Amino acid sequence: MWTNSHIVHLPSCERTNREEMEVAQNTWVGAAPQKPSPYLSNRGNLIRDFTGILREGFLLYHKDKHDEKDNPNGMINLGTSENKLCTDLLSERLTQADMFHIEPHLLQYADWKGRNFLREEVARFLYDYCKAPRPLKADNVVTLNGCTSVFCCLSAVVCDPEDAVLVPTPFYGMIKKHFILYNNVKLVYAHLTSEVSAADENPFHLSVEKLEKALQEATQEGARVKAIILINPHNPLGDVYTSTEMMQFLEFAKRHELHAIIDEIYMLSVFDERTTFQSVLSFKKLPDPQRTHVMWGISKDFVASGMRVSCLYTENQDVISAIGELASFHGVPGTTQYQVAQLLRDRDWIDQVYLKAHRNRLREAHHYVVNELRNLEVPFLHRPAGFFVWADFRKFLKEETFEEEINLWHHFLCEKILICCGKAFECCEPGWFRIVFSDKLPRLQLGLQRLRKALQQLEENHQCIGP
Amino acid sequence: MWTNSHIVHLPSCERTNREEMEVAQNTWVGAAPQKPSPYLSNRGNLIRDFTGILREGFLLYHKDKHDEKDNPNGMINLGTSENKLCTDLLSERLTQADMFHIEPHLLQYADWKGRNFLREEVARFLYDYCKAPRPLKADNVVTLNGCTSVFCCLSAVVCDPEDAVLVPTPFYGMIKKHFILYNNVKLVYAHLTSEVSAADENPFHLSVEKLEKALQEATQEGARVKAIILINPHNPLGDVYTSTEMMQFLEFAKRHELHAIIDEIYMLSVFDERTTFQSVLSFKKLPDPQRTHVMWGISKDFVASGMRVSCLYTENQDVISAIGELASFHGVPGTTQYQVAQLLRDRDWIDQVYLKAHRNRLREAHHYVVNELRNLEVPFLHRPAGFFVWADFRKFLKEETFEEEINLWHHFLCEKILICCGKAFECCEPGWFRIVFSDKLPRLQLGLQRLRKALQQLEENHQCIGP
Repeated sequence: MWTNSHIVHLPSCERTNREEMEVAQNTWVGAAPQKPSPYLSNRGNLIRDFTGILREGFLLYHKDKHDEKDNPNGMINLGTSENKLCTDLLSERLTQADMFHIEPHLLQYADWKGRNFLREEVARFLYDYCKAPRPLKADNVVTLNGCTSVFCCLSAVVCDPEDAVLVPTPFYGMIKKHFILYNNVKLVYAHLTSEVSAADENPFHLSVEKLEKALQEATQEGARVKAIILINPHNPLGDVYTSTEMMQFLEFAKRHELHAIIDEIYMLSVFDERTTFQSVLSFKKLPDPQRTHVMWGISKDFVASGMRVSCLYTENQDVISAIGELASFHGVPGTTQYQVAQLLRDRDWIDQVYLKAHRNRLREAHHYVVNELRNLEVPFLHRPAGFFVWADFRKFLKEETFEEEINLWHHFLCEKILICCGKAFECCEPGWFRIVFSDKLPRLQLGLQRLRKALQQLEENHQCIGP
Repeated sequence: MWTNSHIVHLPSCERTNREEMEVAQNTWVGAAPQKPSPYLSNRGNLIRDFTGILREGFLLYHKDKHDEKDNPNGMINLGTSENKLCTDLLSERLTQADMFHIEPHLLQYADWKGRNFLREEVARFLYDYCKAPRPLKADNVVTLNGCTSVFCCLSAVVCDPEDAVLVPTPFYGMIKKHFILYNNVKLVYAHLTSEVSAADENPFHLSVEKLEKALQEATQEGARVKAIILINPHNPLGDVYTSTEMMQFLEFAKRHELHAIIDEIYMLSVFDERTTFQSVLSFKKLPDPQRTHVMWGISKDFVASGMRVSCLYTENQDVISAIGELASFHGVPGTTQYQVAQLLRDRDWIDQVYLKAHRNRLREAHHYVVNELRNLEVPFLHRPAGFFVWADFRKFLKEETFEEEINLWHHFLCEKILICCGKAFECCEPGWFRIVFSDKLPRLQLGLQRLRKALQQLEENHQCIGP
C-alpha cells in the first residue's frame, strides 16, 4: 500500500579517522532495518520507515555540521536546496518596525485558507511578478504552511488512494513523501535521460512525446493517472520552460483530463538575465483552467524555508473548498501571515534591494561552482535558474549502477561533503548528482576542495572509469 | 469510507428583517446539498462536503460579525471556544523587544519535530506546570502547528484506515475531522447522559464502567478500537478528573492495549481555586507509558489559537519517529518557535501577570454567565474549568428530538446569537448547548440579552415545553 524505505548500509570510510568513524557509525546504525514497532499501526510503521536514501547523509550532517569557527572539519552541506546568500537581507527586513504589530485578531482563529489580507496581497504579488494578463483574485488563493502541504492537500482532493500522478524524472525527491505519506497516491514516471539526438540536443529535455509515452505505459500497467506535476524552473535540472513548451504540456494534460500541478517555487530565482521565466499565470488563456493549479511560496525566492508560507492559485473553487477543509492541519500563524503580507507589499525593497542582490549573488555563486566543475572536468548542465547544478559524475563510477552511485555518494560523505545523488530524485541514469551552490563563498570553496580531494583519491586508486 | 456531511436547511427566521434575511439566505444557500464535483476525487468530494452541522452558523457569523462600533447588530459568537479576555496581555508580551530577534537559522529548514530550543523549553515548562515527578525530556516532545495536527498525526500512526478510537460523548466536535479527513479513522462513542443515580449524582460523569460497556459494544459490532481520547479539563463539560479517576481510565486503556490520547489543552484554565488539576505527566508511574500520549498547546491557556503551536509529549520513540516524518506537513515558523520559547521561559510574567489575570477574568466571566443562566432558569453544569458552560435547554424544545434542537439553534441564530448545540458534539440527549463565556462583558451582556429575548419569544408563542 505504502512503499517501504530504502535502507542504506554503513559506508566504508577508509580514510576517516577513528573519532569520525564513531560519529558516523552511531549515526548509520539508525539506518539498519528497523523491526516493526508493536505500538504503531501498519501505516504508522510504514510512515516511520519512509526515509529516502539521502536520510542517512542528512543525519550525519546534523550531528556534525560545518561551522567556520566552531567545527571547521564538520560536514559541508551542498545537498539542501536552501539559499544562504540573502539571509542577511531578509533578517534585516523582518526586524524592521512595521513587522512588530500585533492586532488581537492575529492571535485568534481565522479562515484556515489564509487570512484575507494575506490572500489579497498574494494575489496582487502574483499578478505583478507573474505578469498576469488580468488581476488575480484573492478567492483563488489558499495559503498554507509550505509547498509540502500544498502538494499534500492537492493530492488528497484530486486523487483517491492508489490513484497515480505523472512526474518527469529526475525530480525533487521529497515530492514522493508529499503524495504517499497521508494520501497513498502513487507516482508514475516519465524518465528523462542525458541522451541527445540531432532532433533534440538538450539532455534531460522534457517533451510531450515523452509524456505521452510514459502516460500510455503507466495506463497500460493499470495506473489510474489523475494529474501531472510540472516543476518550472526545474529542480534539480535548473531548466526553465518556454511558454510554448509549457503550453504544450498543459494541452497534453487537458487532452487526458489530468490536473496540472505547476510548481513555480523558484520563479524569482532565474539568475541569468538572458532567460525570461513565464509563469503559467501569465498565459492569456489556459487550456483547462479548472484543472490547472499553480503553487509558489517564499521558501526559495525569499530565502525563508523556515517561515513555512506557500500558496496555491487555482480558479477551481471545488479544489479551494476541499483544501479549505484540510487547511486546519496546515495553518500559518496570524503573526507570520501579517509579516509575509508586509514583505510582499514592500515593492521598493523587493525590486530595488532584494531581488537584485538575490539574483546577483546566485549568479556569482553559480559562476564559481560551474568553473570549479570545469576545472575538475565534471560535466554539468548549464542552466539559468535555481540553486543547484545537475552534474555528471558517471565517469567516476566503477560501473554504471546505482549501487556504485551510492558508493560514490558515501565516498563524498567520508570526505565530509554532502550532495544529493540522482537516485534520490528517481533519475534513471546512475552517476548524476545535484550540487547546491547558494551558499557563502568560503563554504563553497571548502566543499569543492573536498570534492576535488574525493575525486583525486578515486583516480589515485585507479577506481575511476576513464573517459 | 469517509462519513458524509450533515446538511442543514434554511432556517425560518420570521423575525429577521428583509436585509438580514438576504444575508442569511445567501449564506445558507451554501448549505444546500452539493453536487459532486467532477474535478475532485471521491475522497476530495467527501472532504469538501465534510462540514459539521455548525458550519452554517459560523458562515453566517463570519459575514455579519458583531462589532461594538461598526456592527452593533451583528452576530454575537459565543460558539467558538476562544479566550478574548487576555489578548491585551499576550499582545503586549509578544511585542516586547526580546521577541524581535531573528537569527538566520530561524529562517532555514530545521528538525520538523520542532527546533531543539523550543522542545527543551516545552519540556521544562511541562515539568514545572504539570508538576512532573522528574524532569521531562526534550526528546519526548514534538511541536506541531496546533492540536488539530497532533490529533491528525497520532491517528495516522497508531491507527490503520477504518480502525476506531473510543471517545466519551459529548466531546469537542472538531475532533471527528482530525481523525477522519486524512486518516479515515472512525470514532466510536461512550455516551454520557444527564441521568443521575444515588450511586452517581454527577450528570455526564465518565466512569470505567461506561468505557468498558462502550468498548465491548463497539468491538462486538466489529470495530477495531486502537485508542481512547481523554479530554481533561473537558470540552464541552468543563469537568476536571481526579487523579484517581484518570488513573482508572489509564488502567482501562492498558487492560485493552489502547493508546491513551490525553488532551490537556485547558490545563492552565482551571479558574476555580478549590479545584486542582492533575496532569497525567504528574503521575509517578503510568500504567502503560508507551501507549500514553499527552497533548498541550498555547491556543487556550495562552489565548493564542491563531499562533498555531501545540505539542505532544510521549515516551514512545516509535511514535515520535513516525510523527517526525509527518511533521513536515505541520511545521511551525522558526520565528514563531523562537517567540513561543521566549514566552514559555518568562516565568515571572506567566506567574505574576498572566496566569493570575487569566484565571481571574475567566472566573468573573463565568460568574456573570452562570448568574444570567440562573435568572433565565436555564439549568447548567457548574464546573471549575474551561471557557464554556454546558447548559440544558431541553425544556425549550417542543419535543426532545435533535430536529427540535437544531430548530432552537436556528432560532438563536435568528436572534443573532451563535452558540453550539450538543448534536455537534455527539451528545446523545437533545437540548444541551455549549455557551462560551471567555469574552468581554459588553459582548456577554448583549449575547445573554439576545438569548433571553429568544427564549421569551418561545414562551410567548407557547412553544416551549413547560417544566
